[in-house]
Amino acid sequence: MRARYKPWADDYLKENNNIVVPNPSDYKGDWQAKFTNHAPIHLEIGTGKGQFIMGMAQQFPNVNFIGIEVVQSILVSAVQKVVEEQPGNVCFISDDADNVTDIFGENEVDKIYLNFSDPWPKNKHAKRRLTYKTFLEQYQSILKPGGEIVLKTDNMHLFEYSLVSFSQFGMELEEVVLDLHEFNDPTNIMTEYEEKFSAKGQPIYRCRATFV
Amino acid sequence: MRARYKPWADDYLKENNNIVVPNPSDYKGDWQAKFTNHAPIHLEIGTGKGQFIMGMAQQFPNVNFIGIEVVQSILVSAVQKVVEEQPGNVCFISDDADNVTDIFGENEVDKIYLNFSDPWPKNKHAKRRLTYKTFLEQYQSILKPGGEIVLKTDNMHLFEYSLVSFSQFGMELEEVVLDLHEFNDPTNIMTEYEEKFSAKGQPIYRCRATFV
Repeated sequence: MRARYKPWADDYLKENNNIVVPNPSDYKGDWQAKFTNHAPIHLEIGTGKGQFIMGMAQQFPNVNFIGIEVVQSILVSAVQKVVEEQPGNVCFISDDADNVTDIFGENEVDKIYLNFSDPWPKNKHAKRRLTYKTFLEQYQSILKPGGEIVLKTDNMHLFEYSLVSFSQFGMELEEVVLDLHEFNDPTNIMTEYEEKFSAKGQPIYRCRATFV
Repeated sequence: MRARYKPWADDYLKENNNIVVPNPSDYKGDWQAKFTNHAPIHLEIGTGKGQFIMGMAQQFPNVNFIGIEVVQSILVSAVQKVVEEQPGNVCFISDDADNVTDIFGENEVDKIYLNFSDPWPKNKHAKRRLTYKTFLEQYQSILKPGGEIVLKTDNMHLFEYSLVSFSQFGMELEEVVLDLHEFNDPTNIMTEYEEKFSAKGQPIYRCRATFV
C-alpha cells in the first residue's frame, strides 16, 4: 500500500507510545503484560490503516490484537483509530515482519493474520513474500502448537504460491475459499483495501493453515 | 456428464475387447502385459469421451494410458476414437472409480488424472466426491511412492474441497493454478467439457498433489 509522505508520522507514533510499543523486543515472552486481560494474542502482520484489527478487536473482546506495520505514514491512520475509540485490546508495533522472532517468544502467539500482503510478483523476489519458507519458520517459532495462519488476498498468484508454500512446509490447510464474498462469512472483517476491491466485484481469496 | 441412452453401447464395448478390457481385475499387478511397450502407467478416472486421454497418448507416446469410465454410453465415444486412430498406448475399463484397488496392484500406477469429476455439491454427498479420503486411500495404494494426482475442474467448491482434502490426508501440493488459461500451459490437453467451458471465459482450476 502506498501512502502520502507524512513528516509528522514519526513524532505522532512516538507520542502515542501507549499504543505504539516503543521497544517491542522488551516484551518478548511477556506480551500478556501489555494488556489488562489475560487472553490469546492474535498478530496481524502488515496491519495497514487498521480497519481490520479494529473490527476484529470489537468482535472479539476476549482476544488481544497486535498489529505490525513497517510504513509509518500508514500506521498513523491505525493509531488514530485507537486514539479515537480506545479499545483495551489493541496495540501496534512499528517494524518489519522480518523481526517477529526478536519481538515474540516461542509459542507466544495464537494466530497470525496476513491481509493483502505485497505479492512481489517477480519470481526473483519470492523470498520477500510473507509466505516464503523463511517467514513460515519464524511464524512457526512464535505460534503456539497448532497455531493458525489466516491469509486473505486479492492476488491470485500470491494465493496460488502461498497454498503450495504452506503445503510444502508441512502445514495443513483447514480452509480454502476462492470467493469470500460469495462464501458470505458474516464474521469477516474487511480491510480498507478489501472493501475497495470487493466493490468492483473481484474475488477475495482466503485460507487457513496450521502447523501440524 | 449426461449422455443420450445408447442401447448398442454394451455390445459395442464387448466387441472391442482389445480396447475395453473385459475382466480388468485379471490384469491386477500385471498391467504392463496389456501394452507392447514397458512404460509408466497413467490412469484417468472418469475418462468421458476420451479427448483428454487421446491427446495425452499422442503427446506422450512413452506412457501407457488407461481410462476408467462408468457410463457406457459415454465410453463408446472414447472407444470410437481409439478404433479410428489406433494408438498403441491407450485402453479402457468400463467400471466405477470405487473399484480401482480391485483392478490395480500396489504401486502399479504412476499418475492419476481426475478431470471435471462430479462435484457432488451437497455436503451429505461429500463421500462420493473423487477426492474424498476413502478414494485418496485407494489412490495411495495403487500409486507408486511419490505418485501424483492431477486434478482439473471448473467447479470452485470441488476445487476448494479437494485442496483441503489432499492436505488433510497428508499430501503435498506441488502446484495450484486458479486460471489455467491465463497460466497458458502449452502441454495442457483439454477435455471436451473443458473446451466448451473455457470458450465462455470461465476459469479452469488445476492442482497437482503427491503422497509424501
